[in-house]
Amino acid sequence: MAGNTLDVVTSAWINVVTSIVILLAFAVLKNQPMNARVYFPKWFLELHKRSAGSAGGFDPASRTTNPIGRFLNLNVKSYAHVMDWIWTTLRMPEMELIEHAGLDSAVLLRVFLLGFAMGSCRLKMFAPMLVWGCFVLIPINKTDNELMSYQKSNPNFAYSTVDMMSIANVHDKSKRLWAHLLAAYMYTAWTCLMLFKEYEQVESLRFKFLAAQKRRPDQFTILVRQVPRVGQIKVSQQIENFFKENHSEHYITHQVVYDANYLSLLVEDKEKCLDTIEYLQKQQGGSQSSQCPTTRKGFLRIVGEKVNSIDFYTSKYNRLIEEIKTVQCHILSSEKFVMKAGFVSFNSRWGAAVCAQTQQSKDSTCWLTDWAPEARDVCWDNLSIPYMALNSRRLLVGFLIFFIAFFFMIPITFVQSLANLDALDKNFHFLKPLIDQSFIRSVLQGFLPGLSLNLSLHFLPQLMMFLSKFEGRVSYSKIMRSAATKYFIVMVVNVFFGNVIVGSVFVQLKQYINSPIRVPKAFGSSIPMKSTFFITYIMVDGWSTVAAEALRLGAFMWYHLQNMVIVKTERDRNNAMAFSTLQYNAVLPKLGLYFLLGLVYSVISPLILPFIIVFYAFGYIIYRNQVINVYVPKFESSAAFWPLAHRFIIVALLITHITLIGLFSIKRSAASTPLLLPLPVLTLFFHWYCTDRYGPAFDQYPLQEARAKDNLERTLEPNLDVRSFLERAYLHPAIKAALAEDTVALDASGIYNLLGNRITEASSRPAQSSQRSNVDNKQYEQTCIVSIDSQSTSTM
Amino acid sequence: MAGNTLDVVTSAWINVVTSIVILLAFAVLKNQPMNARVYFPKWFLELHKRSAGSAGGFDPASRTTNPIGRFLNLNVKSYAHVMDWIWTTLRMPEMELIEHAGLDSAVLLRVFLLGFAMGSCRLKMFAPMLVWGCFVLIPINKTDNELMSYQKSNPNFAYSTVDMMSIANVHDKSKRLWAHLLAAYMYTAWTCLMLFKEYEQVESLRFKFLAAQKRRPDQFTILVRQVPRVGQIKVSQQIENFFKENHSEHYITHQVVYDANYLSLLVEDKEKCLDTIEYLQKQQGGSQSSQCPTTRKGFLRIVGEKVNSIDFYTSKYNRLIEEIKTVQCHILSSEKFVMKAGFVSFNSRWGAAVCAQTQQSKDSTCWLTDWAPEARDVCWDNLSIPYMALNSRRLLVGFLIFFIAFFFMIPITFVQSLANLDALDKNFHFLKPLIDQSFIRSVLQGFLPGLSLNLSLHFLPQLMMFLSKFEGRVSYSKIMRSAATKYFIVMVVNVFFGNVIVGSVFVQLKQYINSPIRVPKAFGSSIPMKSTFFITYIMVDGWSTVAAEALRLGAFMWYHLQNMVIVKTERDRNNAMAFSTLQYNAVLPKLGLYFLLGLVYSVISPLILPFIIVFYAFGYIIYRNQVINVYVPKFESSAAFWPLAHRFIIVALLITHITLIGLFSIKRSAASTPLLLPLPVLTLFFHWYCTDRYGPAFDQYPLQEARAKDNLERTLEPNLDVRSFLERAYLHPAIKAALAEDTVALDASGIYNLLGNRITEASSRPAQSSQRSNVDNKQYEQTCIVSIDSQSTSTM
Repeated sequence: MAGNTLDVVTSAWINVVTSIVILLAFAVLKNQPMNARVYFPKWFLELHKRSAGSAGGFDPASRTTNPIGRFLNLNVKSYAHVMDWIWTTLRMPEMELIEHAGLDSAVLLRVFLLGFAMGSCRLKMFAPMLVWGCFVLIPINKTDNELMSYQKSNPNFAYSTVDMMSIANVHDKSKRLWAHLLAAYMYTAWTCLMLFKEYEQVESLRFKFLAAQKRRPDQFTILVRQVPRVGQIKVSQQIENFFKENHSEHYITHQVVYDANYLSLLVEDKEKCLDTIEYLQKQQGGSQSSQCPTTRKGFLRIVGEKVNSIDFYTSKYNRLIEEIKTVQCHILSSEKFVMKAGFVSFNSRWGAAVCAQTQQSKDSTCWLTDWAPEARDVCWDNLSIPYMALNSRRLLVGFLIFFIAFFFMIPITFVQSLANLDALDKNFHFLKPLIDQSFIRSVLQGFLPGLSLNLSLHFLPQLMMFLSKFEGRVSYSKIMRSAATKYFIVMVVNVFFGNVIVGSVFVQLKQYINSPIRVPKAFGSSIPMKSTFFITYIMVDGWSTVAAEALRLGAFMWYHLQNMVIVKTERDRNNAMAFSTLQYNAVLPKLGLYFLLGLVYSVISPLILPFIIVFYAFGYIIYRNQVINVYVPKFESSAAFWPLAHRFIIVALLITHITLIGLFSIKRSAASTPLLLPLPVLTLFFHWYCTDRYGPAFDQYPLQEARAKDNLERTLEPNLDVRSFLERAYLHPAIKAALAEDTVALDASGIYNLLGNRITEASSRPAQSSQRSNVDNKQYEQTCIVSIDSQSTSTM
Repeated sequence: MAGNTLDVVTSAWINVVTSIVILLAFAVLKNQPMNARVYFPKWFLELHKRSAGSAGGFDPASRTTNPIGRFLNLNVKSYAHVMDWIWTTLRMPEMELIEHAGLDSAVLLRVFLLGFAMGSCRLKMFAPMLVWGCFVLIPINKTDNELMSYQKSNPNFAYSTVDMMSIANVHDKSKRLWAHLLAAYMYTAWTCLMLFKEYEQVESLRFKFLAAQKRRPDQFTILVRQVPRVGQIKVSQQIENFFKENHSEHYITHQVVYDANYLSLLVEDKEKCLDTIEYLQKQQGGSQSSQCPTTRKGFLRIVGEKVNSIDFYTSKYNRLIEEIKTVQCHILSSEKFVMKAGFVSFNSRWGAAVCAQTQQSKDSTCWLTDWAPEARDVCWDNLSIPYMALNSRRLLVGFLIFFIAFFFMIPITFVQSLANLDALDKNFHFLKPLIDQSFIRSVLQGFLPGLSLNLSLHFLPQLMMFLSKFEGRVSYSKIMRSAATKYFIVMVVNVFFGNVIVGSVFVQLKQYINSPIRVPKAFGSSIPMKSTFFITYIMVDGWSTVAAEALRLGAFMWYHLQNMVIVKTERDRNNAMAFSTLQYNAVLPKLGLYFLLGLVYSVISPLILPFIIVFYAFGYIIYRNQVINVYVPKFESSAAFWPLAHRFIIVALLITHITLIGLFSIKRSAASTPLLLPLPVLTLFFHWYCTDRYGPAFDQYPLQEARAKDNLERTLEPNLDVRSFLERAYLHPAIKAALAEDTVALDASGIYNLLGNRITEASSRPAQSSQRSNVDNKQYEQTCIVSIDSQSTSTM
């Protein structure tokens, strides 16, 4: 008995200490000016917009002239306030946060917040459950003696203090179970109430956010796919004819989608080339006496004659420029690069809303319209997949997900068995002397199996992203949402069911398919005894991962490595900043999994709740800090992922109910088992109601809102030229880049001008990459516009 | 063995003879002029529109002056051509049929046609299956000897010739089963191909039909529900404000919905009163010398003082007129009779299509818009059910359907046990002498159990209609579709599963829930042996019901009864015509059930196919005749029920696959069982594809179509006044009736004028009841229009 309990306590101590150490390290490191670009990259982006003083906890202006002070914080007093960042982080009001980091991030933080209670009146999901659990359920469980009497008959049976406080310690057919039944109802009702309120608030936040948004091209634009080919008419012409006919009052312009993958590669090459030239220039400039660097012309730059590097890359650059021009003109003039899709813009939000929500053509497989994603959010490669291919890809991915979910453990188990030291001994004799050392042996044995599981779990979100992209979704935000769903399914099957079901999943699976009524029973019997395991899991996986997220060890090392090797100027330092974004596709399913654990164990073994609450609270603080200081959003979907979070929690509720039904029927509490049956039905009904009531707000834009915003704009800016605002917004980024900048051949002086241009742009680039077009080079641009326009308005 | 086979043959003979006798009776009866109004009521409605000569087989103008010839057809020669109506019926081309009877009826006939082959190139579902079945499957089954060898070991086991030709006669693990596997794939592919083509054709028919439709109010009108109450603003005002704001370019007018149930009752009373007066007048006029009929004033007209009947009813009529006026003015002026719904009309089909397909408000529970049904199709009572009530009603009905589907047999079995003669003996002693007579006993014993089952099955469609109406659907066409789905579920569970599963459903049900993998096995073992039963079922239920449908015995008797008792004039005779409509809610599920039987047995026991093909062919002829001559459509949904028929057949396919999987695993043909698994998956995929591709056409109106029709109309009628066309189209029929006609008090001469009016209207009434408004009484109407208009345009 003691051993098991001790394990948990030890594990808790280890994890608490680890987390605190990581946090302290984080607090100290972020206090050093030299790490500012690692821990406050978002503020560097904002520097031009806002006064630096408001950057939570960090003030770039305070750097002293002391050369050491520029890198290390020598002010000893300030270390006394090293944990103040927590309060600074928490102090930012939600509205300011939304403005600063976008609605997506703010709503994700609300999901964390949903898991714990905070402040005076903001009681959220698990805190009241913990209260009832501590004052009612735990005393009830503890004062019974089922486990002890079971141990008397089976002396080998071991149980922990945690188990004693769980429902496993209550006798079969005991009257005490009524308290648990009551708890199940109260908890479900409470969760639904919280979810309902949250849905309502997120919906209203979303509408407020949309209403407050500035004028953006995607408000006026829809994406049309599956434009049918009719005879020799050009796609562009066809789109124009169709929308001029059917939306005559609202259509103003459109942009066809080009297959510009090759051009993208060229533009990328050109950028790299320019980087190299820049680097070489600096090398030469830095040590003016040094001889000019040389390079070889041939294969991989290691064979062939030596030439002056700068000359070589400049001529390569000029060649690329020429090729880009040719390819680009080719793309813009040839019909075979035009995909059967286009972005159609309207003169009002109302017109766009109408077109996005209605069916255009008799044949519902062509002229498919939907809101255009933000330009930076568009997944260009996916825009031209034909209708049938889309369907078969989805079917295929569906099958794959099924197999990954259920057979994911096979390769892992195989890898783990390989990692097994005895197996290593056998297969790799040369490792034997190393392995035989007892210290290494124990580290490996405790470390390898876990590592292999964690590594494979770590790559799952990426795999899911790849699969979702393969499915052909048109924007990265949709890809992320789809990947999140897939990841959640795989996690629930493998982490939750995989650990709950004793024995091999595959053997069990067949039995359960044969007799699904046994599933709840099997759950019911094994789940109460698993609470110790899941408490450890929450600490190892939950706490440590969150702490590591704050430390950003990877970004930290990468930045300082770059700093040591190539960074010369302030601009280089900015380039070396490792921006990262909030990975909804990984965070959201994880949150869903913890909701599942919390809900399932809230009735069965309430002792798990404090650990979960700590996870949510800790995660909330860390992620709030990251959202404020680190993450740079790549797109803004205006909380479109919320319905997904809602669905995850509903699934968690349903699994909880099934588990409880199984548990109660095992405890042979026949009177109360049927009383649990309404719970899943009512929960489903609640879910349908919420989806029906609030769901449409997350994928449609009501006409009333659109009209109100149109009217407001018309009053404020009566002479607005919407057409010119929209004309080039949805041009393929590669074409736009090719059109916009760097398109004159370089000579000696040209390089410096160009580099000068780049430096002034640099700091604002990552966030505003879609608006890069307003640079000079007007002349060349003009000639190209002609060809684009002729593309847009050409007749048969 | 012989007994079982003999049963089928006997049953077949009996049913063939019965059907032929009924058909002959029908052919003879419809040839009699006096029955013309029973068998050709639809043509009487068309008399004014078309020349009577084209009425298939019947020519009202040919009635001789011979007094007997007016009632009986004395031309003996014509009886030689008594079955010619079949060719006459089949000869009408589909396009003419659509024009004559509407698209709904024509598409229902296509569903019949889908079941069999007809003509040269129109091979449909079951005919090719029959060919493969006869030339491949039956020889393969017949030449094996599984049943005989089984009989050798179990001498009590009996089997029929039908069983010998089924898969039951093939040995376990036999190579012959590959033929059946191949058949399963071929049949599924063939069925899907047929379904796909059919969906395509029905879709194109629907679009053609919609494009050819005349201008109708429902093309310009949408129904808005859940208008939110804001302060003291009137509903009408709110609707106007909202749509003037958000659809300013298209909105023209609207009509609020009144709660006019009481007024409906009054109008009905008034009509009855007028009928009585008319009848009394005729009595008096017929025998001018007879004394004036009298009536009593008091309770139920049996107590109180005697008065002159005509005077009594005239004064009652005048009182009703007064009350109708008062109530109507009250309804039109008081806000509490205004429901939170309205019909909003637009100046173009495009505007209405946009409004019907888009979300209007942030709150997706209010301002719900959808296409307005035809005015005659609106279910007025359901228009004001609040949102939450709708949801709970649906939930409730869902539960009810579940219970009806699974526990329907309990009361039936109970009634059957009551009907059991021994039980009757016990419970009702006084019946004993009657029951003891052997003839009555045998009739009762053979008759009662079947009768009770059939009676209860007969009332099911009505019950389903009631439940669907209770669910709150806004139009009768939607109610019918929902009722059809419910009926199909109940039929499949009770008729198919109920007969296939041996033993009590309830006992089995629990086992199957415990172990669903056993369901296919149980099916697989019992289904082949049930083919004899289902052949009989098809003949009794299918053939006879169809033949009875042609005979219209009920309508026939009702008409002649009326003719004998009250009919005096030609107009009375027209009133006595029993119109009926095509009951999609009963016919469609039945067709679905036969598709299920046909598909399941097409592989297992192909001998059932001829019976099914005969059913479809026979049904096609009869229903084509009824559609042409008898049924008067109450509404036209433009084939909106087709996706339902498609879904029924898909469900039938899936059940077939599950059955086959079970059967093959029982035959221990392990190699081929997994080969069947892709079938249901592919079928589901096919279904999703069809629904995705053609489904939207059945509930949305594409903007391209709407715009084309608008443009055409604008070219043809540039000066069209749409507003006046739409203004009163969706007024509650009771208010309209109260406004429109019969609203002046009667005096002696007034009665005759009024009756004269009614007679001229009478023949065109049933089909055009929604257009009754264009009658005189302009003066009173004008005063009321004022109050309606003030309602529509009132301000706060």
